Amino acid sequence: MYNLMPVPSRLIISGEPYVITPDFRISITGNPDQRLYVQASRFMRRIGEKTGFFLDKQGYVTLADTSISSPLLIKVKRPGKLELHENENYSIEINSQQVEVTAETDLGAIHALETLMQLVSVNENGYYFPGVVIVDEPRFAWRGLMLDVVLHFMPMDVVKRTLDGMAAVKLNVLHLHLSNDQAFRVESKQFPQLQMISSNGLYFTQENIREIVRYAGQLGIRVVPEFVSPAHTTAILHAFPELASVKKNYALERYFGVFDPVMDPTNEKVYSFLDKLYSEMAALFPDRYFHIGGDENTGKDWEKTPHIKTFMTAHHMRSYMELQTYFNKRILPIVRKNHKIMMGWDEILQPGVPQDVVIQSWRGNDAFYQSIRNGYQAILSYGYYIDLIQPAAYHYSNDPLPDTVKLSGEEVKRILGGEATMWSEHVTPETVDSRIWPRTAAIAERLWSPQDVRDTRDMYRRLDVASLNLEALGLKHLSYKPAMLRKLANGYDARALEVLVNVIEPLKIYERNEGDTMYTVFSPYTKLADVATPDQPLPRIFNQQVDSFLKSSSSILAVTISKQLELWKDNDPLFLITLHHSPILNEAALLSKNLSAIATAGLAAMKFIQEHKRAGNDWLREQQILLKKAQQQGGRCELQVVIPIEKLIGAAGK
Amino acid sequence: MYNLMPVPSRLIISGEPYVITPDFRISITGNPDQRLYVQASRFMRRIGEKTGFFLDKQGYVTLADTSISSPLLIKVKRPGKLELHENENYSIEINSQQVEVTAETDLGAIHALETLMQLVSVNENGYYFPGVVIVDEPRFAWRGLMLDVVLHFMPMDVVKRTLDGMAAVKLNVLHLHLSNDQAFRVESKQFPQLQMISSNGLYFTQENIREIVRYAGQLGIRVVPEFVSPAHTTAILHAFPELASVKKNYALERYFGVFDPVMDPTNEKVYSFLDKLYSEMAALFPDRYFHIGGDENTGKDWEKTPHIKTFMTAHHMRSYMELQTYFNKRILPIVRKNHKIMMGWDEILQPGVPQDVVIQSWRGNDAFYQSIRNGYQAILSYGYYIDLIQPAAYHYSNDPLPDTVKLSGEEVKRILGGEATMWSEHVTPETVDSRIWPRTAAIAERLWSPQDVRDTRDMYRRLDVASLNLEALGLKHLSYKPAMLRKLANGYDARALEVLVNVIEPLKIYERNEGDTMYTVFSPYTKLADVATPDQPLPRIFNQQVDSFLKSSSSILAVTISKQLELWKDNDPLFLITLHHSPILNEAALLSKNLSAIATAGLAAMKFIQEHKRAGNDWLREQQILLKKAQQQGGRCELQVVIPIEKLIGAAGK
Repeated sequence: MYNLMPVPSRLIISGEPYVITPDFRISITGNPDQRLYVQASRFMRRIGEKTGFFLDKQGYVTLADTSISSPLLIKVKRPGKLELHENENYSIEINSQQVEVTAETDLGAIHALETLMQLVSVNENGYYFPGVVIVDEPRFAWRGLMLDVVLHFMPMDVVKRTLDGMAAVKLNVLHLHLSNDQAFRVESKQFPQLQMISSNGLYFTQENIREIVRYAGQLGIRVVPEFVSPAHTTAILHAFPELASVKKNYALERYFGVFDPVMDPTNEKVYSFLDKLYSEMAALFPDRYFHIGGDENTGKDWEKTPHIKTFMTAHHMRSYMELQTYFNKRILPIVRKNHKIMMGWDEILQPGVPQDVVIQSWRGNDAFYQSIRNGYQAILSYGYYIDLIQPAAYHYSNDPLPDTVKLSGEEVKRILGGEATMWSEHVTPETVDSRIWPRTAAIAERLWSPQDVRDTRDMYRRLDVASLNLEALGLKHLSYKPAMLRKLANGYDARALEVLVNVIEPLKIYERNEGDTMYTVFSPYTKLADVATPDQPLPRIFNQQVDSFLKSSSSILAVTISKQLELWKDNDPLFLITLHHSPILNEAALLSKNLSAIATAGLAAMKFIQEHKRAGNDWLREQQILLKKAQQQGGRCELQVVIPIEKLIGAAGK
Repeated sequence: MYNLMPVPSRLIISGEPYVITPDFRISITGNPDQRLYVQASRFMRRIGEKTGFFLDKQGYVTLADTSISSPLLIKVKRPGKLELHENENYSIEINSQQVEVTAETDLGAIHALETLMQLVSVNENGYYFPGVVIVDEPRFAWRGLMLDVVLHFMPMDVVKRTLDGMAAVKLNVLHLHLSNDQAFRVESKQFPQLQMISSNGLYFTQENIREIVRYAGQLGIRVVPEFVSPAHTTAILHAFPELASVKKNYALERYFGVFDPVMDPTNEKVYSFLDKLYSEMAALFPDRYFHIGGDENTGKDWEKTPHIKTFMTAHHMRSYMELQTYFNKRILPIVRKNHKIMMGWDEILQPGVPQDVVIQSWRGNDAFYQSIRNGYQAILSYGYYIDLIQPAAYHYSNDPLPDTVKLSGEEVKRILGGEATMWSEHVTPETVDSRIWPRTAAIAERLWSPQDVRDTRDMYRRLDVASLNLEALGLKHLSYKPAMLRKLANGYDARALEVLVNVIEPLKIYERNEGDTMYTVFSPYTKLADVATPDQPLPRIFNQQVDSFLKSSSSILAVTISKQLELWKDNDPLFLITLHHSPILNEAALLSKNLSAIATAGLAAMKFIQEHKRAGNDWLREQQILLKKAQQQGGRCELQVVIPIEKLIGAAGK
């Protein structure tokens, strides 16, 4: 009935709706942080923009707005602290007289406002809030999104609208990945060379960072910075080659992947450098958590450097991993003296690492529970790698604490939550929204809603609505597509291209990179695989229709399916006209041809099925070859309708 | 044949094209400013993005890239200065071996790169530059766009993409309107109250301003700031009421228009304040020109304040305009000592104002030529008010120096050029692109191209291409529309709404304001009049088709026209379904009903015409009533197809 995402803990339908009128006003009582006034004022504008009402009478919600008879009354006990485990609970009570929000902290009240935005409904009387009572609280305290701004830089407007989207689905941690082999993305006043020569001019100034932290804080979102060491540091070594294990000049890395350059853990200058740098950066980010990366050290540059080998021998270290543990133990006091809690990826978890570090788990659920059982607090990112183009359903089914895992009460407490990770090898400011949204809303629900909220079909129904709500908030995951299609069609009619693009998806996991090294920071991301989005709705719907048809033999579905197949069958000649005007589409030609071919096969299969005839074995064998061909990639994309058509052909053979 | 906009001075078709391959590279010889390396590198990426080629071999064009055999060779004599009248000429020579750009300064070379982007063409061999020789120079030296960031604030990403668009059509001045009654939009370290209490948190930091100036400078664009005085200063008087003529507390103005609050020209503190403020701001903007506004002083607060009246009497001033001249004369030394040239709107031109100020003319072409004849340099903005929703053809026909005006050679030299003005009462960051683009490209052509380039139909043909090129560069004037339609349709099918929106335009000139005070800074700009764009192509094309049909009786056109009319006739019931789900569309109901009604009338007229029958007088009279009704506004919009349908009905009566 409702389209709420994430689903609240409890919702009771209680009675009469509250009708929204141009007299809508907001009052706030109690003792909230000032951020609630900012968000309440913004809520006022959003209601105005949605309804078209001129709600100009209350330009800003202020300390003076305390009338308890306002249409929307928000009651908050105390200012929320931007800390892990802060109270984010809220309740909403709607009746025909008033909408009342109650929360311990303004953080809860801000979540309530987002729930209210999603509740706005329409009937013959206009816009209203339905008569419900909602009592809501998060399942996990750490609900994050990691945004990589290194592999491709993401400017301020992307960061800000990403924060808006996060708040809309009740995520509360933005983890910024700020340094890697390709660049260092924050202005350092201690080491200005970092941004001057190791960012190609694309970095956040300290003023920018303060603005991000301020903007996030007003939405109730913490900002956790990550500065990777000791590997993934080519950009730092470009500016300071004397810190490297292998002494040479380092160019900024232009490819993406795992590389050998690494800091020299035997060099005391490395620690004094990191002391200064981390202390400067720690002061810039007020959050208690500080992420030092620690992942993907190949160890090669350590193993091949004599003085480092000598050091390892002298300290009885049997592998480079023990050396990295030594390195991490040296870093820990730096982080601690800045009053921060150290975080790192799985790899920092080695014997001897103190239990007050937090593990971000990316290598598998086993590694995650091992961290937990070993006494570490941890957040789960494995299964939430949204850069890998997997469907929302896959991420949605990935529960940090499923029934199947048996943990003690203490262990359960150490599961802090999870983080979606938006690595930016293959995304640009133009396409990044389409990789984050709407799928991240499904992850947000997994981390917020009760464990038993896991109906995938209902999730998708609500995800489609969430997607539009996110667009209304300013996200570009829908509007970028027609713009890119127009570009790809080079000014000509893009409709045939659109038909094709709606049934393909970019290659998943790490398949987009041929041999891992095809793309660089200079590559064009304006191609077929960039306009194609993950988790296409049309193939999902078509697949459901085929399943239903094969069960029910519904003649209405038969018409729908056949019409769809006809469209695909006839699309290739139209596509070829567009291609004629736009050679960049050459890589799509095979996909278009194959779509046409399997649609033709699907239509023939429909005929067999509807005429209750059995297709001959020769024909079936031919179609199998066709289907196999249709699995080929083109332009680093693949057709998403092979499986449902295969089902039709299979049915024709019975 | 070509789609260049603005049209170059000379273009000669010379021979073989240059085919673009993945080996494309750029060399630069001579002595350009560093900005050319930035833009050449960017050009490299744009070619990669357009063609899909992985041009990763040349990540950046650097000082080392001087090989004279590169596919694109750019030869520049000297660094361009960002000054009025700097040399912006360039030439391009394309043959099968090479593309060669020659320019006196890098400013010319950057224009050449934009011309080259527009030249990229497609044939059976792929992408190529056609074999042409182009020799080009601007007609006017000052080709500007004024962006008002006060009435609605425009964040950095809007400013930057606006600059990108400006460079693409060879505009070279961004005039930023930075203070007015509603806000003061720049951080002042001298008077931090200005941004702290008079901006509602929406202002550019000094770092932001430096970034805008830097970014513009790299594109060859000057940035001229405007800080209005003595009127339009409510935001300053909110922070510093002691500077006002009438002593009281001033709230920030929330309405748009002309208001009485004004600085006290008899108060020496006003001049010491403006001395500090203007000196601080002058240092922030390196351009030689400094705009002090000076417009729309009602004089009322001067006339009604005894000590100001006394001052006027003592100084033998007969009107408040003489007092404003006094004020301006006091401001002039402040501007001069900062090594700036003072600019102002028409109103600053009063007897006694020195001739080294520059007039920006907005009150009519007569005022413009009067300034010129009186010895002032001037730029024309009258006729370029793009906020008034007039068609590109109107602005295009507005020549700063038409044949009809007789001026001496010296006078002609004083015509510096013109500026489109984007006042932001009724635009937000979401809609502003659709008000600036593509129409401003037509104004840019008027200011750049030879006077005899004035074929409106050809302008529109090229404007449609320019519009897509601007989108490819990142402008949102096309992609914002489907996003807004989805919002307006509240998640339901937006197609019927789209049909309607494609034939309406927002009310023009100042008609959108009912009684001038309907809208405030808090009003929703997410309504019908915001998704409707100026200068709709479909009504223009439909009108042309009707004209051609009435001349030729072409049966193909008859079918096209009838099909279009059928679509409109049948749209209202579909629209009503959308409306049912989205009450915000109520204001569109009348327009939809009227569209349906006049389309029905148009179809009947077509029948009369095609059957060579004459419609009866009663019927004709009824249709006239219908047509008159159809001119009514709805949602501050009006139907754009009444005139062509009126033509059909007229023809049916003959």
